[in-house]
Amino acid sequence: MASPIVTLTTDFGLSDSYVGEMKGVILGGNRQTQIVDLSHDVSPQSVLHGHLVLKNAWRRFPKGTIHVGVVDPGVGTKRKRILGKAEGHFFVGPDNGLLSFLTDKRGARFWEIDKGILPKTESRTFEGRDVFAWVAGRLVKGAVVSKLGKGISGIEELKIPFPRFRDDDGEGKVIHIDRFGNLISNFTRKMIGRGYEVTYGRRKIGPIRETYADVPAGQLLALWNSWGHLEIAVRNGSAQTRLKPKATDRICVKKSDPRRRRRHGT
Amino acid sequence: MASPIVTLTTDFGLSDSYVGEMKGVILGGNRQTQIVDLSHDVSPQSVLHGHLVLKNAWRRFPKGTIHVGVVDPGVGTKRKRILGKAEGHFFVGPDNGLLSFLTDKRGARFWEIDKGILPKTESRTFEGRDVFAWVAGRLVKGAVVSKLGKGISGIEELKIPFPRFRDDDGEGKVIHIDRFGNLISNFTRKMIGRGYEVTYGRRKIGPIRETYADVPAGQLLALWNSWGHLEIAVRNGSAQTRLKPKATDRICVKKSDPRRRRRHGT
Amino acid sequence: MASPIVTLTTDFGLSDSYVGEMKGVILGGNRQTQIVDLSHDVSPQSVLHGHLVLKNAWRRFPKGTIHVGVVDPGVGTKRKRILGKAEGHFFVGPDNGLLSFLTDKRGARFWEIDKGILPKTESRTFEGRDVFAWVAGRLVKGAVVSKLGKGISGIEELKIPFPRFRDDDGEGKVIHIDRFGNLISNFTRKMIGRGYEVTYGRRKIGPIRETYADVPAGQLLALWNSWGHLEIAVRNGSAQTRLKPKATDRICVKKSDPRRRRRHGT
Repeated sequence: MASPIVTLTTDFGLSDSYVGEMKGVILGGNRQTQIVDLSHDVSPQSVLHGHLVLKNAWRRFPKGTIHVGVVDPGVGTKRKRILGKAEGHFFVGPDNGLLSFLTDKRGARFWEIDKGILPKTESRTFEGRDVFAWVAGRLVKGAVVSKLGKGISGIEELKIPFPRFRDDDGEGKVIHIDRFGNLISNFTRKMIGRGYEVTYGRRKIGPIRETYADVPAGQLLALWNSWGHLEIAVRNGSAQTRLKPKATDRICVKKSDPRRRRRHGT
Repeated sequence: MASPIVTLTTDFGLSDSYVGEMKGVILGGNRQTQIVDLSHDVSPQSVLHGHLVLKNAWRRFPKGTIHVGVVDPGVGTKRKRILGKAEGHFFVGPDNGLLSFLTDKRGARFWEIDKGILPKTESRTFEGRDVFAWVAGRLVKGAVVSKLGKGISGIEELKIPFPRFRDDDGEGKVIHIDRFGNLISNFTRKMIGRGYEVTYGRRKIGPIRETYADVPAGQLLALWNSWGHLEIAVRNGSAQTRLKPKATDRICVKKSDPRRRRRHGT
Repeated sequence: MASPIVTLTTDFGLSDSYVGEMKGVILGGNRQTQIVDLSHDVSPQSVLHGHLVLKNAWRRFPKGTIHVGVVDPGVGTKRKRILGKAEGHFFVGPDNGLLSFLTDKRGARFWEIDKGILPKTESRTFEGRDVFAWVAGRLVKGAVVSKLGKGISGIEELKIPFPRFRDDDGEGKVIHIDRFGNLISNFTRKMIGRGYEVTYGRRKIGPIRETYADVPAGQLLALWNSWGHLEIAVRNGSAQTRLKPKATDRICVKKSDPRRRRRHGT
């Protein structure tokens, strides 16, 4: 049988033993398991950041993959620990919105992990190891999801700010800044048609491009990124360094109307 | 046969080719080997940091796992290169205290790696690759430990500062700050009973809790962490940012005596 | 059949989903593939940094390994996407000098990836996933290189500054600073014989040593590093912190002549 694949997404960083402890526990279930790090550099306790990493990566993996996500500011509270299944993939994590990108997937199902199956542990602070990795270890050993918890009808939604639209104009914001300093907004391709102009704060950025090379090196541009989101970037540079974004900054899109512009111009 | 697992713990970081070179050498011994990174973000040349990562992670892995640790400020000196075996796990690294958590394990055995078995190399600066990864490559190929070196009776001890106790009161210090800004002290569960109050410098922290959620968000607390150490934390925040710890700061524990307190209060 | 090994070298960092997306695509080709991270911390868009990582690590891996490198400031331009084969290893990446350490390898061959074989994608910004990982996925599935592109006679060269020599004296520069703050120069063992003295800017460093332990702790030294390059280091410290290098700084080597020195000294 092909060995199972387990992906990990956490905010644990790689300077402590935490991720290693989780991997040991998973391999204890099946030492042939292939463990793939999606990211351990999620900003500490940023459920949104972890949600975006998982949301954009999980579908790239083969069916049968088990995705473990642990960004868990509510560890030790009454929040549920959940299992999910969608499109042949499995998910394990806290019920805090980290996995809520699954709720609109056809046939998605969820379970609350049964406390009764968990081993007794000395510590109550590290559920990434003692609950989530342990459950993944059961799955790679062949456990059936429905034996690990009881079905639940829904999970917590993560409230991702949605852009506001008035007529054709939209006002959105930055929801993620990536390692290249690209500012990724909450506008997606589905929300906007063709012929829009983008503004960042008071600064005109221009039309929405398809790739960085559509402008000269060093120039600001707006484009559709690989996640399908509207992104502000600097070709061969960093929009973060250039624009020094603040949390209150807004990204606006405006339908460009050639007739009105011409009239104003004459 | 199940493929062997090799864990790596180094201070090499991931921006250079050093870790990749080690992995290539190990896979040269057996390309089926599963290599698991514990951490490569050990603070440069901090043997204590590497010791803590290995100490807290190795037992989580299946028996037969080979743990390679390279934090080696003494590379090129006369310090020994050693192999260890304890509880069915194997260890490879420099004899500088990195592996000294093994010395109290029942039946632990140690060997000094025999210089005569090592291949001649052009460079004398990268024993992580040319000695330790190379020896791990021999082990995953099936070599027997006792053929790689000669038995030794003991290894170097790492001097981890031990808390001082006077009657029921103890004075300890921070030995590690993790990625969440938690201050991890040298007090362990075994040293202290119930009913203690914790002070950091002149600041009262309170009793020792079991989990972060025992206090409101943003509040300082002391708790037993997942390693079994006493930790100072801020729920959903960073104790490092809050307390700006200095190397001279002390963590004190004091047996709380309800009678004496009450007397003072009236 | 032994599972193939794929190494990854990128400037994508590990805080976003980008590396995870690439891994999913590769495992989609063959879920048994062992994926090994060389580095994802290449400085953003630094082709030289990625070149050095790959150049110094690839040969350590077993034959048959597929090395994927993506540091690609020219994504979306007309630069070619290439495949390479040398000494039984395979290479995939952009044709921008990242792989040009292969050009002097005997029997090295190169192909331009055929656009016609690539699947249609929504995005034009992430060729690491949609081109290079996808092609690696085909290779781990068993595709033959020559079916993925047409042979080309050469690839782009990376212009790495070469030291200037006048008689026995050479003037070079720092081409990489590693995680320990070691300054790695463009002088290699092959360029220089024995009996040289090294200067950094106006500062005398001394003769070229073989290992860090050849000087006392805290002292500056020059030595041959594990890549075979001349390196300026501080034993148990950081030359970067000590010397605060600027891009204009020069490293000079001078043949030491004992006779002339003595004459001056009397």
